[in-house]
Amino acid sequence: MAEEKNIRLILEYDGSRYHGWQRQTGFPTLQEVLEDKIKTMTGENIRLIASGRTDAGVHALCQVANFKTFTHLDPMILRKGLNALLPADIFVRKAEIVPLDFNSRYSAKSKIYEYRILNRKEPDIFLRSYTWHIADPLNVEKMAACLSLLLGKNDFSSFKSSGSSIINPVRDMMKADILGPEDGLLTFSFEADGFMRHMVRNIMGTVVEAGRGKMDVEKFKKIFQSRDRRKAGLKAPAQGLFLKLVKY
Amino acid sequence: MAEEKNIRLILEYDGSRYHGWQRQTGFPTLQEVLEDKIKTMTGENIRLIASGRTDAGVHALCQVANFKTFTHLDPMILRKGLNALLPADIFVRKAEIVPLDFNSRYSAKSKIYEYRILNRKEPDIFLRSYTWHIADPLNVEKMAACLSLLLGKNDFSSFKSSGSSIINPVRDMMKADILGPEDGLLTFSFEADGFMRHMVRNIMGTVVEAGRGKMDVEKFKKIFQSRDRRKAGLKAPAQGLFLKLVKY
Repeated sequence: MAEEKNIRLILEYDGSRYHGWQRQTGFPTLQEVLEDKIKTMTGENIRLIASGRTDAGVHALCQVANFKTFTHLDPMILRKGLNALLPADIFVRKAEIVPLDFNSRYSAKSKIYEYRILNRKEPDIFLRSYTWHIADPLNVEKMAACLSLLLGKNDFSSFKSSGSSIINPVRDMMKADILGPEDGLLTFSFEADGFMRHMVRNIMGTVVEAGRGKMDVEKFKKIFQSRDRRKAGLKAPAQGLFLKLVKY
Repeated sequence: MAEEKNIRLILEYDGSRYHGWQRQTGFPTLQEVLEDKIKTMTGENIRLIASGRTDAGVHALCQVANFKTFTHLDPMILRKGLNALLPADIFVRKAEIVPLDFNSRYSAKSKIYEYRILNRKEPDIFLRSYTWHIADPLNVEKMAACLSLLLGKNDFSSFKSSGSSIINPVRDMMKADILGPEDGLLTFSFEADGFMRHMVRNIMGTVVEAGRGKMDVEKFKKIFQSRDRRKAGLKAPAQGLFLKLVKY
């Protein structure tokens, strides 16, 4: 009998067409499409574990996912086959055998998310699914000052998903900065040991309120310290968010 | 009674979802969507004349189109209204009153088309609708040498649409060059006093054959001089093509 293997995939996907990572009856999801094509290749009903479940419309440049299998297929062949079978908005960058105890979710040390804002008067229709277009001028320095308050080990309850009942809302934020503007494009980058659902988008919604001049840095600080989700701004739209990297 | 006006629109669109510019029963086209929304705004059945009819899947950064109208609407209001009504893949950059004898098609002095190739081993799924992905290495110098042969007044019969019966296949090519590679992106730029249908894509298909090493510059020259469409390469895919600018 064949030996059990653990295969890790590095995935790039455009989340526009999908109702997020996690399987949902009646809606196209990344997990379903990928598990189905892996079944076509291996003949096995595998379960694909991602580093985290991206939401509907969220993209990934480097999602990591692994599955246990008894397949005889070489990972390189599996990768080629999957890329031939998968739709054009999903791409397997890498496939490799990893130790059996590797788990994409629990083995992750930190993750980097990027949020892209197009900050200029006119939209760019070619970026409509990959940025949040904000026509009003944003104060970048002020937004950067807000972000710096997030650094270190902090309770992120103010930015958790509304209705969520996470037991431990403390996360260690190692990086939170802004690149640009470059042709109006602002790239916000966040690295933490973990992210709660909607956390980046909730942070972004509130930071943008500060950038628009609707609140000052002091107010942002109070909201963050309040640990009260209801005090923070609206959730930023999904299409600006990219899972950039997962570190192990 | 209101006076007749001629309104010129500058349009940006993502051609991915459309069967080209020109109205076709049963298929979504740019002309149809735009004429319908202009009707919503003005109440008139207008006819929108574009500088040229882009094909299915071809994009525009600066398409020019005009229509005659008796509307009282200020062009700025019309523009705002259209942008609110149009789908997210079409954007009116500008709307202005022009002299009654202005015709987007016949008044054009020259046009610039851009063709984008992603030349690297791995695809970029986020550019899949906006580039032609070629994994094989391309010889940029050789392709540039081919392009330089196109400059000046020439008979472009070799690159006309197969089956087309254009009366005058002579065009004045003022510019034909390559920018990049930048992160694998090669941008081919063509300026001429006019382009026949499929002309840029037919040139690109043949130039890429040279770039792949399947023909030398001398062969390319012979094909160009043969004025025989059957000698040239295949038509390059639509999604790499952008109408960049129309000069008047």
